[in-house]
Amino acid sequence: MNTNISERLSALRAIMSQEHLAAYLIPSSDPHQSEYVPDRWKGREWISGFNGSAGTVVVTKDRAALWTDSRYFLAAEQQLAGTGYELMKLKMPGTPTIAEWIGLQLSHADTTEVGLDGMTCSEAMVSQLVADLRRQGGITVRTNLDALQPIWADRPKMPTDPITIYPIEYAGETAASKIARIRKALRQQHADGMLVSALDDVAWTLNLRGTDVHCNPVFLAYLLISTDHATLYCNPTKLSGTITQYLKQQGVDTLPYEEVKNGLAHYPDYNILLDPTETSHTLFQTAHAQEALSLPSPIPAMKAIKNNVEIAGFHRAMLRDGIAMVKFLKWLIPAVQAGGETEISVDRKLTALRTEQPLFRGVSFDTIAGYGSHGAIVHYEATPETDVPLRPQGLLLLDSGAQYVDGTTDITRTIALGEPTDEEKHIYTLVLKGHIQLELCKFPDGASGTQIDGTARQAMWREGLNYMHGTGHGVGAYLNVHEGPHQIRMEYMPAPLRSGMTVTDEPGLYLAGKFGVRIENTLLITPYMETEFGRFLQFESLTLCPIDVRPIDISMLLPEEINWLNEYHQHVYNTLAPHLDEEEREWLKEATKKIEN
Amino acid sequence: MNTNISERLSALRAIMSQEHLAAYLIPSSDPHQSEYVPDRWKGREWISGFNGSAGTVVVTKDRAALWTDSRYFLAAEQQLAGTGYELMKLKMPGTPTIAEWIGLQLSHADTTEVGLDGMTCSEAMVSQLVADLRRQGGITVRTNLDALQPIWADRPKMPTDPITIYPIEYAGETAASKIARIRKALRQQHADGMLVSALDDVAWTLNLRGTDVHCNPVFLAYLLISTDHATLYCNPTKLSGTITQYLKQQGVDTLPYEEVKNGLAHYPDYNILLDPTETSHTLFQTAHAQEALSLPSPIPAMKAIKNNVEIAGFHRAMLRDGIAMVKFLKWLIPAVQAGGETEISVDRKLTALRTEQPLFRGVSFDTIAGYGSHGAIVHYEATPETDVPLRPQGLLLLDSGAQYVDGTTDITRTIALGEPTDEEKHIYTLVLKGHIQLELCKFPDGASGTQIDGTARQAMWREGLNYMHGTGHGVGAYLNVHEGPHQIRMEYMPAPLRSGMTVTDEPGLYLAGKFGVRIENTLLITPYMETEFGRFLQFESLTLCPIDVRPIDISMLLPEEINWLNEYHQHVYNTLAPHLDEEEREWLKEATKKIEN
Repeated sequence: MNTNISERLSALRAIMSQEHLAAYLIPSSDPHQSEYVPDRWKGREWISGFNGSAGTVVVTKDRAALWTDSRYFLAAEQQLAGTGYELMKLKMPGTPTIAEWIGLQLSHADTTEVGLDGMTCSEAMVSQLVADLRRQGGITVRTNLDALQPIWADRPKMPTDPITIYPIEYAGETAASKIARIRKALRQQHADGMLVSALDDVAWTLNLRGTDVHCNPVFLAYLLISTDHATLYCNPTKLSGTITQYLKQQGVDTLPYEEVKNGLAHYPDYNILLDPTETSHTLFQTAHAQEALSLPSPIPAMKAIKNNVEIAGFHRAMLRDGIAMVKFLKWLIPAVQAGGETEISVDRKLTALRTEQPLFRGVSFDTIAGYGSHGAIVHYEATPETDVPLRPQGLLLLDSGAQYVDGTTDITRTIALGEPTDEEKHIYTLVLKGHIQLELCKFPDGASGTQIDGTARQAMWREGLNYMHGTGHGVGAYLNVHEGPHQIRMEYMPAPLRSGMTVTDEPGLYLAGKFGVRIENTLLITPYMETEFGRFLQFESLTLCPIDVRPIDISMLLPEEINWLNEYHQHVYNTLAPHLDEEEREWLKEATKKIEN
Repeated sequence: MNTNISERLSALRAIMSQEHLAAYLIPSSDPHQSEYVPDRWKGREWISGFNGSAGTVVVTKDRAALWTDSRYFLAAEQQLAGTGYELMKLKMPGTPTIAEWIGLQLSHADTTEVGLDGMTCSEAMVSQLVADLRRQGGITVRTNLDALQPIWADRPKMPTDPITIYPIEYAGETAASKIARIRKALRQQHADGMLVSALDDVAWTLNLRGTDVHCNPVFLAYLLISTDHATLYCNPTKLSGTITQYLKQQGVDTLPYEEVKNGLAHYPDYNILLDPTETSHTLFQTAHAQEALSLPSPIPAMKAIKNNVEIAGFHRAMLRDGIAMVKFLKWLIPAVQAGGETEISVDRKLTALRTEQPLFRGVSFDTIAGYGSHGAIVHYEATPETDVPLRPQGLLLLDSGAQYVDGTTDITRTIALGEPTDEEKHIYTLVLKGHIQLELCKFPDGASGTQIDGTARQAMWREGLNYMHGTGHGVGAYLNVHEGPHQIRMEYMPAPLRSGMTVTDEPGLYLAGKFGVRIENTLLITPYMETEFGRFLQFESLTLCPIDVRPIDISMLLPEEINWLNEYHQHVYNTLAPHLDEEEREWLKEATKKIEN
């Protein structure tokens, strides 16, 4: 592979030289600013070998570097070894920004232009980069060059998978009703229309689903909504007659994918809303010739608040996912003791158990099964090269989820495969305390995730420990497992927390070279109480699965934390038991039995 | 007074009519965007009668409204009663923004221009208002009219009080050194100079103090710093020969106050940094004709981190303030029992005791002594009309502070004047829990105040209770009692918390019509530990004064909270006892004795 990478870099540099570019930037996204992208846009992986979901490559005449975040530091180090790429660890002291690094590299270059493909970069990203590079001694940016196209011989084609209708008994609201709500939100912003670029927003709005992206049931399309028209731009081969007819009923026309540029240019009187974080630079500039309102899209905040039909679906999906998890956990320890199991084999077993469940459509992300020191690699994905046998000792971190037609799941459990050490128990209990404190947290309606993130971290902060990823993200209703706009994290996220939102609770601790712990439930935000001081909200666990009690140092838990765990386990048992056989029920009874100090 | 107000409104409306203005806006600030202003700029109080530190008036042909925040809702209601002013409660559901309200009022007006004095409004405020009003049907703003000047007959003159030097044994760093650090920060921003508008930033940079503003030891001046020049623009009558000579030694010229506009215009090649939140709209626009960098001033972040000399000064000032507080608290209960004391009389007593302390220069803000239901008025200030006698029952909320030459203090205690009720104990203990949890909090170096604010609120949120003000603000070193850029509050404040910063810890609860509780210490941020997960910080109490234990419901406290209180009280006793007489020491011993569950 390293030979491949160096050949590809040479080919790219030849193009750069021909185009008089001093540097070329390749982001990890697609024309829709997706987190997970169709294979056609895995150009950053193709040019670098790094396959994480987030990372940006910059190539100059003689250097190449990749920026990624702490979730991927260890994975990126391994995957970039021997490629000549330098790893730039985002947000770590001393790491230069992309603009600073380019500025340094180009300080003695004869050309000072940087190239990129404006279709794969958001307007927000490009405008920031242009401003930052201008301050680095007047470096300019050319945004209309897809330099990979001529050199990527076997580049995957545009996906042609068929689109399917997401039935109203799962969606709970018609597309026509959603479009009406969007139009109302646009009027409040004094906008006459908007371009919807984000694939999950398109899918949610129209109650359609697809299979263009691994794990995310979305399809490649743009949706242009105006005061009296709505047009879906997508490859006609993806649309059956039924779909076209359904769309017409909902008031939506269809046009080929590539026509979206014309669609934007066709409405010169438009006061069109474009979200600069989800709209590509190229399309944003196309519309910008007209009157464009650069504002956040109203759709993510609508999509994030689940309606009662979706919430009922989540409960059913979580029940089935819990059954699969219990069958798996009951099987795991004896299987490990018997020998022959590995990270990959237990992942296969878990997926097989989920596949048996009705309405299962696939995993919602690639399982993270990290044993021992692999557990400290936050987004570890076992490969045949890294896979290790599981032995009856140490911790197994297992972060997994499924797509069911009635809901998406996301759960992490860390399991002691043998007798845990004192250090494992101490770290495990700190994470558990954080997890429980967030579950117990009450907060004012509309609080930001930043206001409550510290709840999950205070116990570890008191020991000088921390995790560098977020504590929680929204989860889609048979949509993307990572859904905005709200998040619970250290960095400020202004999106207010509202009743009806799903959000994960997943603190962790990672001791490099030793082990990792993460404990994650998916939660629903529900009303708590209303007083003269306003409305207050609370969390309700959607996830139904026991939390391993063997690695707990119970002396570290507060009485309220012990109570929460016992009540949660009682709830898990009561809900799942009727759906289990005798042996599974016995196992679950033991796994959920009361702990006492 | 109400006759006065209506006459003043008529006079203002005559000017508005003459100038064809549909509305006129009067903010609460001065040309330096001060929180507390010289009398000359108390125009909002003059036109409305409302004397709080924050509030904005808008007057139209037939209506007048005042926007203020929750600290002042009750006070403003009382002060505006009978004036015809409508009270607009900021951040409460249903309250229109200033722009929305103006839009509504002017929807049928024949003129649609709003006037204001651009010298008393920040650039950030005006540019936001201009954008918001444009969206309200194209309302325009005229920014060059001081409409109060012709109608405010006895308007106070510009202050002429002398400026004094703040000695290096208190400041700990020379002005020349501070200016060198500012120049370095400017170079990092690619700026060739900056205008310093904020009065406390001018005073801090030059190690000068003044008496132009009530409670804040600052003086009216601008400071223009360029690569090789620094010029203080201030009224020459304020400058003695000694001061002028001192400034010369530090590399600072002087020019008259009014010359600042010319100063800005004189440097056409300047790449000048102007902080849009502290620079007036008028001056910002003067410089904007040149190249202006609209960026946050680097000075607040420098000033916020106290050097070792300043920290030593704080410790000495807090010791003397604690002695005065102990003498006061020892006196209070018997005095109340003897009868004849009122809110105003105990304030006088406390100030008299502080005045006896060396280096006392005045109070750092007007004392808030709120008895019973007055305690629920967050920024209550007793007047002869509202003053009430204190009886041996109920709670007295006492928020006070002093300016000592070696440090500024800010402390709140809530004192049970008799046997507290169960409700008083319950609310008091919730506030105390919040206070202690924040004192106990550890956090990563550079965390924002928003990340830890919830620590002080979680216990009350669980009961549907909250307070609408911030939890903490910086405190100056013989400077303003409210100092930025960091804050601990629900709203996002990006300024990172750093070692060496002072910050208050002042959660509260206010039951309208019943009583209020607030417990406040001033804290110092110090290093906690450094691990592979980074540097962590902690708080150290600077304030030395017992916290009333009689209103505590001890069953509500966690063991760690009881421990903190006992250790804090032990520290208070050990530090203060050597400086007290026998009787005071006995009293303090009793007030700080261990509590146990």
